[in-house]
Amino acid sequence: MRYAVFGTGIVGRTIAAKLAALGHQTVIGTRDVEATLARTQPDSMGNPPFTQWHASLPEVRLKTFADNLAGKVLIDIANPLDFSAGMPPTLNPVNTDSLGEQIQRAFPDAKVVKTLNTMNCEVMVDPSRVAGAHTVFVSGNDAEAKNQVTELLLSFGWPKARILDLGDITAARGTEMLLPVWLRLWGALGHADFNFHIAGT
Amino acid sequence: MRYAVFGTGIVGRTIAAKLAALGHQTVIGTRDVEATLARTQPDSMGNPPFTQWHASLPEVRLKTFADNLAGKVLIDIANPLDFSAGMPPTLNPVNTDSLGEQIQRAFPDAKVVKTLNTMNCEVMVDPSRVAGAHTVFVSGNDAEAKNQVTELLLSFGWPKARILDLGDITAARGTEMLLPVWLRLWGALGHADFNFHIAGT
Repeated sequence: MRYAVFGTGIVGRTIAAKLAALGHQTVIGTRDVEATLARTQPDSMGNPPFTQWHASLPEVRLKTFADNLAGKVLIDIANPLDFSAGMPPTLNPVNTDSLGEQIQRAFPDAKVVKTLNTMNCEVMVDPSRVAGAHTVFVSGNDAEAKNQVTELLLSFGWPKARILDLGDITAARGTEMLLPVWLRLWGALGHADFNFHIAGT
Repeated sequence: MRYAVFGTGIVGRTIAAKLAALGHQTVIGTRDVEATLARTQPDSMGNPPFTQWHASLPEVRLKTFADNLAGKVLIDIANPLDFSAGMPPTLNPVNTDSLGEQIQRAFPDAKVVKTLNTMNCEVMVDPSRVAGAHTVFVSGNDAEAKNQVTELLLSFGWPKARILDLGDITAARGTEMLLPVWLRLWGALGHADFNFHIAGT
């Protein structure tokens, strides 16, 4: 398959590396290719500059965000974190809207599927990092697109029984709103190798 | 111990019955005793009127909400559901505040502990209804109050290892924000005998 990953931060890199390792033709997109390539310092989280990461994965080509999304499956794995009032971040939008719905409205011809946004990026592509049963949520308006995303999740190592379909894209409100308790858990546990599981399913 | 339960709906009744069954001296509070006793019809969720439930548990006395909260542990198990815009309910407050924090501010001399608000009331008092490991969150500003609430949760059947302290009362923002995904799960699963678990702890 061919995948374009939007974003060259740690999440985008982790997903792009996994897709490439699975043999997919993968490109990674950034707003400004020149600026991304010019950075020589670690980012605010201490991650190495893009070029350093890219040196080990030159087959993942760097491109701009420009893409024709019509008819394509768009997998939204992000959370709408708002750092404008400091730490901890809040969510914007929240409660009566979600990032997943915003993206679907902005690109009505794309098939938006929300998934993977409720865990650390290392867990996204390697669920075996977390011991015991744990859950990945899927939501979106297009059943066939959700089937395709489910196949991708299976290839990432997610057991079929742990992929939980919550219905249409408005369910993204619920999964995005898991972020604040995720942040508290990160603080309480001191590591990010944990995940939500829905017991009783 | 002596417990006053605020609220005569299905959650209040379930908690009061459990406390009475454990041998605690328990009263249940309502805004208007006369009105609560006068009801003869099921509520909007189909639960029987209070008097019908009360007939089997006359030792739980019905009183008004009036109580002196200073110095006492106040266990907040509620969610700030806003039905004003129809279904599904939204949360108010949300994101930058929580019901738990509102209650703590309103009663600064009480020791507010937020817990149990992330599951169905039957699961609150009988965690064995949900198969497998699952989690109950605790948050609050007073460590000794959290210890007392932990003892109560142990007596309800919660294993010590499944009681997860998230820190101070601001963590209530996170646990209250689990409600929207809980509602989606309820719809997707078709039953309420499920619960969140944090795998990797």
